[in-house]
Amino acid sequence: MSTGFSPETKALVLTVSDRCFQGTQKDLSGPAVLDLLERAGIAAIERGIVPDEVETISKALQKAAEGANLIVTTGGTGLTARDVTPEATRLVCDRIIEGLAERMRAEGAKQTPLAALSRAVCGTRGSTLIVNLPGSPAGAQSSLEAILPLLPHALDLLNGRTAHDHTQASQVK
Amino acid sequence: MSTGFSPETKALVLTVSDRCFQGTQKDLSGPAVLDLLERAGIAAIERGIVPDEVETISKALQKAAEGANLIVTTGGTGLTARDVTPEATRLVCDRIIEGLAERMRAEGAKQTPLAALSRAVCGTRGSTLIVNLPGSPAGAQSSLEAILPLLPHALDLLNGRTAHDHTQASQVK
Amino acid sequence: MSTGFSPETKALVLTVSDRCFQGTQKDLSGPAVLDLLERAGIAAIERGIVPDEVETISKALQKAAEGANLIVTTGGTGLTARDVTPEATRLVCDRIIEGLAERMRAEGAKQTPLAALSRAVCGTRGSTLIVNLPGSPAGAQSSLEAILPLLPHALDLLNGRTAHDHTQASQVK
Repeated sequence: MSTGFSPETKALVLTVSDRCFQGTQKDLSGPAVLDLLERAGIAAIERGIVPDEVETISKALQKAAEGANLIVTTGGTGLTARDVTPEATRLVCDRIIEGLAERMRAEGAKQTPLAALSRAVCGTRGSTLIVNLPGSPAGAQSSLEAILPLLPHALDLLNGRTAHDHTQASQVK
Repeated sequence: MSTGFSPETKALVLTVSDRCFQGTQKDLSGPAVLDLLERAGIAAIERGIVPDEVETISKALQKAAEGANLIVTTGGTGLTARDVTPEATRLVCDRIIEGLAERMRAEGAKQTPLAALSRAVCGTRGSTLIVNLPGSPAGAQSSLEAILPLLPHALDLLNGRTAHDHTQASQVK
Repeated sequence: MSTGFSPETKALVLTVSDRCFQGTQKDLSGPAVLDLLERAGIAAIERGIVPDEVETISKALQKAAEGANLIVTTGGTGLTARDVTPEATRLVCDRIIEGLAERMRAEGAKQTPLAALSRAVCGTRGSTLIVNLPGSPAGAQSSLEAILPLLPHALDLLNGRTAHDHTQASQVK
C-alpha cells in the first residue's frame, strides 16, 4: 500500500456554491480542503468555483478530468433543491466507489448524526478519481480525512502504478 | 439542527403486505410505526395498506406524496419474490439518500445480522421524504428509531425551512 | 433463522482473473473460498475460471444461475481498468442487496482500510444469489466470513423455504 501521493499527482479542488460563486459568501471549505491535500503531499493543486447547476458542474468535472488525477468537490451534497453535485458527478463517472462514500458517512457520524444525510458520491472517470465532500468546512474536512489514507493507493491503481502490474508485465512475456 | 418536527408535518404510514391487505394477518408494524411518529411529535398521520404489487405501491406513494411530507412504509423489503417495496420506491423517487438506509442496517445489525438483508431504501419525491422499513414490528421500530432524530432536519431542508435559506434570502437582494 | 445450508444447495465458485485463466498465476482464492463453503456444509460445489472480460463473466454467471443457488466470484472488484466483475454482476442481477456488500466492507475495514475500495456487489438473479469477493485470498476469505452466517437464510427466502410462507399457505386457504 502506498504511503504517499505520487509526485505526478495533479488535483483540483472545486467549490460548488451559488453564493460563493456570486461572491456573497466567503469560500471556507475550498481552502480547508486544499490545505489538507497540500499537507498530504500533493504539490500541484488548482482551484475552481462553480454555481449549483448540474450542467455547469458536470462540464467543469469533465474538463478537469482531462488534466487532473484527483478532483475534490465541496458543497451541493445535501437535500435542498439546489444540491445537485452528486447528480453531476454520477453523470460524468464511469464507475462509483460506494465504499468511499460509506466510509465518509460512517466517520462523519461519529461527529454528527446528520452525516447520514450527505448524498456525496465518489467515482472514477477514466483514471481520474472524483470525490464529493459536503459544503461545511468541518464536514468537508472530516469527510476527506476519513478517506485520505486510501487515495494514494486508489490513484496508483487507476494510473497503473501497481506492484501487481509490474508482476504481470514480467510474467506475461 | 432541528429538535422536532415542524407543526406542518403530515405523515403517511403505509403498510405493504398481501396478508394484511387481505385481512388474514393483523398489521402490527403499521401501528407500531404510527405510535413512534406520534410520540416524536407528528400530529397529522394517516394510515394506508396495500398489497405487495409494484404498481399499486408506487401509485399509492405518488398520490400520498401530493399531500404528505413524510411517507413511511413497512414491509416488502426482503428477498422473497413478493418483496417489491424498494423497487416501487425507487420508481417514484427523484433522489435516493443512501446514508439513511445504511444507518438503519448498521443499527439493525446490533440486534440481528439479518438486518443486512433488508433492501429498504430512503429517497425523496419533490419535497416528500419516503422511508422504507422492514415488515417485522421489531425491525420496523428499530430501523425507524435509527434515523428518527434526523428526519426533522431532513424535512426542514426539503421544505426550505432552513437558516441557510433565510440568510441567502437576505443576502441575495 | 436457518442454522445451516439446505442439502439442496448447489454452489459455484467462479475465479475471475486473466492470469489464473492463462495459467500464469496459481489460483489461491478460489480454493480458499471453496474450502470455506464446504466447511459451512455445502456439499455440491463446482468451480470455474474466467478472464476479466465483462461479457465472458456475465455469460458464465447467467449459465451457472440456471443450476446453482449460490455463485461466489473472486477477483475483479478493484479499480484497475481490467476489474469488471461488479459490472458483469450488475448486468445479470434483478436485484442488488446493498447490505451484504456494506457488511463485507465494514468487516474488511477492521483488517485493512483498503477494503473501502472494493466495488464488490451482491445480488440475485431469480432465486440464485451472486456474491462478489475480492481477489486476494485474505480479502476473499474475510469478506465471505462476514456474510456467511446470513447466506443460508437468504437462500431459504429466495427459494421459498420459509416458516413465513408455510404460515401463509395455511392461512390463505
